[in-house]
Amino acid sequence: MAILVVGSIGIDLIETPFGRAEDVLGGAASHFCAAASFYEKVNMIGVVGTDFPQEYLEYFRSRGADTSGIQIVEGRTFRWGGRYHLDMNTRDTLYTELGVFADFHPLLPDSYRSSPILFLANIHPVLQDEVLEQMSGARLRVLDSMNYWISSTRPELDRVISKVDVLLMSEEEARQYAEVPGLVTAARKILERGPRLLVIKQGSYGALLFGKDGSFFAAPAYPLEDVRDPTGAGDAFAGGFIGYLAQAQQRGALTAADFKRALVHGNIMGSFHCEDFGMRRLKTLTPEDIAARYREFLNFTHFDPDWVNGSMA
Amino acid sequence: MAILVVGSIGIDLIETPFGRAEDVLGGAASHFCAAASFYEKVNMIGVVGTDFPQEYLEYFRSRGADTSGIQIVEGRTFRWGGRYHLDMNTRDTLYTELGVFADFHPLLPDSYRSSPILFLANIHPVLQDEVLEQMSGARLRVLDSMNYWISSTRPELDRVISKVDVLLMSEEEARQYAEVPGLVTAARKILERGPRLLVIKQGSYGALLFGKDGSFFAAPAYPLEDVRDPTGAGDAFAGGFIGYLAQAQQRGALTAADFKRALVHGNIMGSFHCEDFGMRRLKTLTPEDIAARYREFLNFTHFDPDWVNGSMA
Repeated sequence: MAILVVGSIGIDLIETPFGRAEDVLGGAASHFCAAASFYEKVNMIGVVGTDFPQEYLEYFRSRGADTSGIQIVEGRTFRWGGRYHLDMNTRDTLYTELGVFADFHPLLPDSYRSSPILFLANIHPVLQDEVLEQMSGARLRVLDSMNYWISSTRPELDRVISKVDVLLMSEEEARQYAEVPGLVTAARKILERGPRLLVIKQGSYGALLFGKDGSFFAAPAYPLEDVRDPTGAGDAFAGGFIGYLAQAQQRGALTAADFKRALVHGNIMGSFHCEDFGMRRLKTLTPEDIAARYREFLNFTHFDPDWVNGSMA
Repeated sequence: MAILVVGSIGIDLIETPFGRAEDVLGGAASHFCAAASFYEKVNMIGVVGTDFPQEYLEYFRSRGADTSGIQIVEGRTFRWGGRYHLDMNTRDTLYTELGVFADFHPLLPDSYRSSPILFLANIHPVLQDEVLEQMSGARLRVLDSMNYWISSTRPELDRVISKVDVLLMSEEEARQYAEVPGLVTAARKILERGPRLLVIKQGSYGALLFGKDGSFFAAPAYPLEDVRDPTGAGDAFAGGFIGYLAQAQQRGALTAADFKRALVHGNIMGSFHCEDFGMRRLKTLTPEDIAARYREFLNFTHFDPDWVNGSMA
């Protein structure tokens, strides 16, 4: 029950007040694959240049991913450089070089077409729509985007959002897209546009899940002592969230309980990913680490329900 | 098992983008009493001028509070005016008139001295210490403060913080007091100064509880559609938190489970308080409303623990 992902694959330069990493594997599809592959097989769609290190393709394959949908095109791979400020919440983009990504059009190997779950990672909404149109059989379609597409390609983004089941947004993006300051109102307005579920990512505050049926769930963030590199944390979040759903789907139709647990798995994978540069932390991660952090989440979010029958009720 | 509170009692002017309220009851001790009185009796310590409306004193009494520790002094009551920005998270102080509060020294009626729980609301740390010294028999001492005292009376604040059991701070105050950007590190540094528990209030993101023993608990905020007036939300939070602990204490020594539930009650009372200007929402609140919101919190924070024994474990 593989997950199909389409998104950027790149080579990053990361600078933080605490360190620097050059020529590291980056891009939304890469970060997603690194996390989701702990749960399910990932079928990757993307493009790289002839300069793309073979070891990065081998890394994807070592994670069990199918890379036959990654086109290798004459030219340079997409490259991005970023510098984080002292608070690690804000960053400056040092450069963006599209390279072969500029003329990218996704091509789906026939073997990908049966993937029941589709993740349209952050790329141009027209490219997201091209994949969506070729994957009409998918049972769960999840979309991520970013502030740039909201302001520059709004009609195209509206169209693709109207066709998906689940939308992921940061809280700033949700406010920007809905044009209201309050998140509850923003969520309702966004859900009127199509998706039945909206996930609002709040970074170091956790994540919220809003349902078109009025349902709500909140998962606080894991209390990390040090954030070493937040790059790709949102994609690793998507990897945990969608990876868990792909697993759960094998046991039957997805339930509200599955989506709650998926939100927690999103937070878990996002938190691990921030603990080191690039994919470094996920390379040493084990299923036992994930299970242990899941138990920690249970412990620091659950409280005794007895009170409602207590002295005050 | 009354809770003794010392703090400001005042008359406020509140302006928001959505409305204005003049001459409303304000002050930390007032907001605290409005919330905590749903759980336990409150013994109030404070000062007002001869201009203080009799109906506000009657309101405290109608909530079952003991007002014999409120001194009525010739002169004007403490007055504060604030104007909220469009995002409702930031505000400008329009004016602060200390009035009779300038020469205030807390006097404890003998009947207050057996209160097992003490809340030192946000006032000058020297006044907090005066009350603390007179209440050596208290079993639980909780302290709140603000950025102004951290920067202007640091040694006095350090001293009183070293003597309390639980410290409440906003996340900005915690970073400022500990002089580090990361909250986990800040919490550890603050707990080294004395208290065994630190509550970090995160406004619309909820609240965190850090224990000196390394324990941690997180309660997300209630998803409010509209925040009409956040004034005193932190004190109403303290009212729910401490009020619940005062109730729980009657069943025996306070446990970790009690503190977790108390954090949820803090969030509940803080959220109700924001729903209308001044004390308006708490005036119509019922114990059934609190119980219903507690059930909502259970529902939107709890998830199925089964996963750890699922297909991946």
